[in-house]
Amino acid sequence: MEKTLEVKGMTCGHCEKAVKGALEELNGIDSANVHLEQNTVDVSYDEAKVSEKEMKDAIEDQGYDVV
Amino acid sequence: MEKTLEVKGMTCGHCEKAVKGALEELNGIDSANVHLEQNTVDVSYDEAKVSEKEMKDAIEDQGYDVV
Repeated sequence: MEKTLEVKGMTCGHCEKAVKGALEELNGIDSANVHLEQNTVDVSYDEAKVSEKEMKDAIEDQGYDVV
Repeated sequence: MEKTLEVKGMTCGHCEKAVKGALEELNGIDSANVHLEQNTVDVSYDEAKVSEKEMKDAIEDQGYDVV
């Protein structure tokens, strides 16, 4: 499944890595691609293995807000 | 010796850590404190051991510009 999350507060390449890394560590995430300028993350995942809540929590644990 | 460097492009806590860490790894740096809002870094150092050029290079290696 593909979904685009809107994430606030990502400002630099380190932020990009932090969010991408936190998502891709989750079981069930195939890929996470951050678009800094758009404040979005495109996520490809197996909805049987990972929930949107888990993705949101992983991003928020890094200090960013999911809109 | 104390000096305030003006650094462009630091936007978040990760940037702060990257610049502070790169400076404090240099021999001769006592402390480096980043002020994100002011785009500055206060450095305390031993001018016999480390040059401004070395500090500037360390910051630029992290992807930031020293003004």
